[in-house]
Amino acid sequence: MGMGNDFIFYQLFEKETSSYTYLLANANEAIIIDPVYEMFERDLTLISELGVNLKYILETHIHADHITGATELRKKTGAKTAVSRFSEVECADILLDDQSEIKFGGETLRAVTTPGHTHSCMSYLIRNFAFTGDVLLIRGTGRTDFQQGSSAQLFHSVHTKLFSLPDNTLVYPAHDYKGHTHSTIGLEKKFNPRLGMNKTEAEYIAIMRDLKLDPPKKLKESLPANLRCGKVA
Amino acid sequence: MGMGNDFIFYQLFEKETSSYTYLLANANEAIIIDPVYEMFERDLTLISELGVNLKYILETHIHADHITGATELRKKTGAKTAVSRFSEVECADILLDDQSEIKFGGETLRAVTTPGHTHSCMSYLIRNFAFTGDVLLIRGTGRTDFQQGSSAQLFHSVHTKLFSLPDNTLVYPAHDYKGHTHSTIGLEKKFNPRLGMNKTEAEYIAIMRDLKLDPPKKLKESLPANLRCGKVA
Repeated sequence: MGMGNDFIFYQLFEKETSSYTYLLANANEAIIIDPVYEMFERDLTLISELGVNLKYILETHIHADHITGATELRKKTGAKTAVSRFSEVECADILLDDQSEIKFGGETLRAVTTPGHTHSCMSYLIRNFAFTGDVLLIRGTGRTDFQQGSSAQLFHSVHTKLFSLPDNTLVYPAHDYKGHTHSTIGLEKKFNPRLGMNKTEAEYIAIMRDLKLDPPKKLKESLPANLRCGKVA
Repeated sequence: MGMGNDFIFYQLFEKETSSYTYLLANANEAIIIDPVYEMFERDLTLISELGVNLKYILETHIHADHITGATELRKKTGAKTAVSRFSEVECADILLDDQSEIKFGGETLRAVTTPGHTHSCMSYLIRNFAFTGDVLLIRGTGRTDFQQGSSAQLFHSVHTKLFSLPDNTLVYPAHDYKGHTHSTIGLEKKFNPRLGMNKTEAEYIAIMRDLKLDPPKKLKESLPANLRCGKVA
C-alpha cells in the first residue's frame, strides 16, 4: 500500500501453502521478503510494472512448507539474498545478525533474531511494520517441534523482541490460514490464545507440547532446496 | 491497516472462492464490505476484538459465486444492510443510489454505480481507497455474461467512474485469484490487459466475448440466497 513519501508496500499470497510474500520499495529500490518459488514470475511482473529495482531478497527463516523463490529472483534481477547467519545457508550473499540493517531507497530495515519456530528465525522491522515470519502469527505462533525449534525460546523471542514494540505496530506474518492479512502488536498481546492474554511461559510450552502436529507436506523437498536458496535440484 | 487518526482497515480473505471482505472503522464505528457466509464467525470475532460496533453491511453486488454473510452479521450485531437500489433485494435496509453516502465514525463513504459485471454493481470510495467489487479486478475485470452484465457498460463504468480517480487511489477488489491483495488506479490504467493499456471499447468487448467461461460453481445456490440477503433457506 502506498503510504506517502513514495513508500510502496505490497502483500502477496500463495494459496496452496497460505504463504505471504512482501514487496517493499522506495525511490525505485525494492526488497522482497519470503518469496515463493511457484510465484516468482508474478513477483517479477509486479517488480517490473512498479518500475523498481530489486536490491535484496530476505528470508525470515528456512521454510519447511514451500520452496523459496530466492534463486529465481536473484538470477533474473541480480538482487542479493540475505538470511540469518545461524541458518547455515552457504549460498546466501549476506548473513544477518541481530540488529543488522538493510538499506534501500532511503529506508532502513532492521533484522532482529527471534528464534523459537526454528533456531535461525529473524523478524524484520521497518517504519511501523513488523514482518514476523512464523514466530508470531495472527492469533497463533509457528510450531516449535522441528528445525531446532524451542517453545521456551519462541515465548522469550516474542515477549522481548516483538511485544516490546508499540501496540500499533502492524504485524505481517509469513502465513495465515484463516484469511487474516495482518494484525497489530496490541491485538496479539490481548488476544493471541497461545502466548498473549497474560499466558505464562509454562502455559505456552504445554500448549505447544500438546499440539501433536503432522509434519508439513512439503518438508522433504523444501528443506534441502531452501538450504540451497531455492535451487531446485 | 491503521492509517493514523484511528482509521482502521482490515482486508480479509476466503480461500475457496478467493473472495475479499473489508472491515473499516473509526471512532468505534465500523462497516463491512462483501462479507462471506462461511467466515461470519471470524468476522464477528475480529469486530469484537477491535471493540467496534458494526453499523453497516455493504455489498458491491449480488454475488454469484458465494453466499453473503450479511444476514448472520445483521442478526448478531443489528447492523443495517445496504445494496444498490437496482439489485431488487427486498430484504436490504438501505437502497443505495449513485453518490449515496454512508457515514460512520466521522468518515464518509461514497457509493458510485459501476454497472457492467452485473447491472447493479456499486463501487465504494473512501479516503484514497476504491472498493471496486467485480468491476475492476487486479489486471482484470469481472465477467459480463450473466446477471444483466454488459461489456460496453463495464468499460464505460471503469473509464468514467474509476480511471478518473487519482492514479495513487488504492484499488481493493472483491476477488483476486493470483495472490495480489491490492492495486492502484495508475497501475490498472497502465497494465490492465483487458481495458487498460489504451484498449478501446471494441477491443474490450471482443476480449470478453471470446472468454467462453463456465458458470460459477455455486451460482445456483448463491444467487437465490443473496437475493434474500444471504438467508440460507
